[in-house]
Amino acid sequence: MAVFSSLTPVFVAVLCVIIGFLFKNSQRRQTRSKQGRSDQTSKPWVDEDLQDDTEISSKHNEDDDWLDTTEEEDLRHIPYTPARYSATEMLERSEMFYSLMNLRRSVRFISPEPVPKEVIDNVIRTAGTAPSGAHTEPWTFVVVSDADVKHKIREIIEEEEEINYKQRMGDKWVQDLKKLRTNWVKEYLDVAPYLILVFKQTYGILPSGKKKTHYYNEISVSISCGILLAALQNVGLVTVTTTPLNCGPQLRLLLQRPANEKLLILLPVGYPASDAKVPDLKRKDLKDIMVTV
Amino acid sequence: MAVFSSLTPVFVAVLCVIIGFLFKNSQRRQTRSKQGRSDQTSKPWVDEDLQDDTEISSKHNEDDDWLDTTEEEDLRHIPYTPARYSATEMLERSEMFYSLMNLRRSVRFISPEPVPKEVIDNVIRTAGTAPSGAHTEPWTFVVVSDADVKHKIREIIEEEEEINYKQRMGDKWVQDLKKLRTNWVKEYLDVAPYLILVFKQTYGILPSGKKKTHYYNEISVSISCGILLAALQNVGLVTVTTTPLNCGPQLRLLLQRPANEKLLILLPVGYPASDAKVPDLKRKDLKDIMVTV
Repeated sequence: MAVFSSLTPVFVAVLCVIIGFLFKNSQRRQTRSKQGRSDQTSKPWVDEDLQDDTEISSKHNEDDDWLDTTEEEDLRHIPYTPARYSATEMLERSEMFYSLMNLRRSVRFISPEPVPKEVIDNVIRTAGTAPSGAHTEPWTFVVVSDADVKHKIREIIEEEEEINYKQRMGDKWVQDLKKLRTNWVKEYLDVAPYLILVFKQTYGILPSGKKKTHYYNEISVSISCGILLAALQNVGLVTVTTTPLNCGPQLRLLLQRPANEKLLILLPVGYPASDAKVPDLKRKDLKDIMVTV
Repeated sequence: MAVFSSLTPVFVAVLCVIIGFLFKNSQRRQTRSKQGRSDQTSKPWVDEDLQDDTEISSKHNEDDDWLDTTEEEDLRHIPYTPARYSATEMLERSEMFYSLMNLRRSVRFISPEPVPKEVIDNVIRTAGTAPSGAHTEPWTFVVVSDADVKHKIREIIEEEEEINYKQRMGDKWVQDLKKLRTNWVKEYLDVAPYLILVFKQTYGILPSGKKKTHYYNEISVSISCGILLAALQNVGLVTVTTTPLNCGPQLRLLLQRPANEKLLILLPVGYPASDAKVPDLKRKDLKDIMVTV
């Protein structure tokens, strides 16, 4: 008994070690499951406004042809008989449209001349004909002509751009600045008669108040912007495609857009200035962009 | 001593438990550090082919107007004097283009009739006029007309789609299958005279052999697809915008595209079938997509 009780401290020590291990393990498990949860809801290293739903899409096992089948089932199907052109007409039309689009250039020198608002309306209507994942039409086009609002947009963007330029270019920036033709000064944001800010709706709100994820919203809205650029070019207006980095949240608040909308693209729109210049860029040849199988 | 030796089995048991815990812990630590490493280089929960460069972009402090300034500095600047239309002409042209684009629909019933290849060439040329981040033109259009390759594409896509459908719909799928008009069977992949597979080049290769990140490549290629859809509609051809989930890697290998190219969109292209039907969808009104400030 004496030997037994003399061994008790050893037992207690061993038990302490075991309890210690068990406790440590359970703590770790909790930490890990917390991390798991936070991984799913946020990524602090991604600018929230630039986050897109690629990861959501990958978890998403729905139909890939952009129309929810259950939704489609409820819809009446109607015959579709569009215009049919002869082979010659097709070739002519395809050449004409290519020639027109090939003249499009990104233009930073925009005239302050007013542009008929009806034309802008039609251009936006045209952008709204784009396809979208499950026909969610996840786009909002904010058309700004108010001089004060344009100037505030310019201030927000130039402030961020100046930081970008200076951080990026460092000492070299000081030397090269005078030679550069573009810098953080974006005069066109004041001058262009219209700024079109294209927001992607990252989710929708169901009648029940619940969120409805808009899959492929970034791709859908970008496709819509492609059609918008074509529509602008078709009427002789110019723009430059910009993605104001880090400015999304501020611009969203300025324009009082809801939390589900994220700025994707900003397009200053107008006639080209009479002295507009563009860099002498070439486009790749067909053989460098197309592979035939 | 007898008592001590009678206690030895207890000690051995306790020691075994301790050693067991220590072993288990060290194993867990190894597993976790392995996971940690793989987290940095890949994200197993994201289909690699759907991963986009949003995170890279957010770290990227370059000029936001899609043209690298240092690159631009080296380029000659030339005057830009595009066509100028009167206000009346602009309005007419904008209305006509809207009417044409508004007739576009996603069509799953495509005629097997041949389509002149020159028209497809011009449509791809037109897509190649899109703007792109730093003028990288990060797109490859793979145009497939070979019947065997089309069929292999169909097999790859249908296999994945069947899994998607069955996993998603479970028992309900069995009941509803007959009522559904779209399912994992994608006949148009065999029937359409052309399949256009649009790949985004996530990075380029510099002459030095180093990788050059293509910022905004997904947005750029999607914009290009918007212009491509407009060009198809302009010549009376139809398509349906699809993003084959989880099929990217297999299709990339089938078409022998390099590792920097990821499938973004697949478009089956042709004339509409004579009995083509489309769901009776409506588009949002202008007031629901445009905000004027």
